[in-house]
Amino acid sequence: MKPTAKHCLLIVDDEPNVCDSVHDLLRREFRVLKANSAQEGYRIMQEEEVHIVMSDQRMSQITGVELLAKVKSKYPRAVRMLFTGFADLESIIAAINQGHIFGFLKKPWQPEELEGAVRLAAEEYDRLTEAAREREELLDVIGSLQRRVTALESQVQRLGGPSATS
Amino acid sequence: MKPTAKHCLLIVDDEPNVCDSVHDLLRREFRVLKANSAQEGYRIMQEEEVHIVMSDQRMSQITGVELLAKVKSKYPRAVRMLFTGFADLESIIAAINQGHIFGFLKKPWQPEELEGAVRLAAEEYDRLTEAAREREELLDVIGSLQRRVTALESQVQRLGGPSATS
Repeated sequence: MKPTAKHCLLIVDDEPNVCDSVHDLLRREFRVLKANSAQEGYRIMQEEEVHIVMSDQRMSQITGVELLAKVKSKYPRAVRMLFTGFADLESIIAAINQGHIFGFLKKPWQPEELEGAVRLAAEEYDRLTEAAREREELLDVIGSLQRRVTALESQVQRLGGPSATS
Repeated sequence: MKPTAKHCLLIVDDEPNVCDSVHDLLRREFRVLKANSAQEGYRIMQEEEVHIVMSDQRMSQITGVELLAKVKSKYPRAVRMLFTGFADLESIIAAINQGHIFGFLKKPWQPEELEGAVRLAAEEYDRLTEAAREREELLDVIGSLQRRVTALESQVQRLGGPSATS
């Protein structure tokens, strides 16, 4: 039932070493893509099926909150996380109210904190997409039942039965 | 397609005048229930179908974050909001990570801020429950198609056709 492929995580931070360390820590469990700016991150979102986006708040030009708010409106299924090294209350409140983020991490984090947070986000992604997957299955069942009804109706007609009514 | 009944909002604050003012402001648009403690709020959740829970953070005994985390695990469909008069960064981060809150409001709020936030929460509730409603509809369609197949199969059998196979 569950997709067996790795979840795809996009990490956005203008410090390449942060991206690299997240990549190294999580690459066995996740497909990790790296972006060094919000613009690059958004471009990757357009090209790849990203399941989880984790962005630093403080970046030049476009902030993490702005990126996540844009991601929410264009790719609402991607689970969004914000992190920052600063106790920046206003941006965290904005991240909740505009980006509807799922999780928040303070820098510097412990490896197990990061792993735990990204695993929770992956579970949330699966929960959100489960309904869509089940919907496809139900539509398939409806399609095959409709074909069966059509076939049976022709058979009744061939056998000279009364015209089919339900 | 959309339910026409009012959304039910539960407001939890140990200051009764806050509950009353939210009630008076929103009662035309929402069914507003009031609780003066987390315990009372949780009891109402068990008795009523609450769509949106809005809780103050600072209350005696159980905090807003603790209440919302509990609500999330027992009633995950209820959209959760937190408000506080204090710039309490740690509790806001906990509210995101444990209660997965949808929105945050700072006290004192402007009436239109509150209205806007609760309307967004109601839209989120509808979005989250839309999938469940559509699932019910698809299951109904499957049920009636299955009954139709059964009826047609009996008809084929009565007419002496070959035993039914798909």
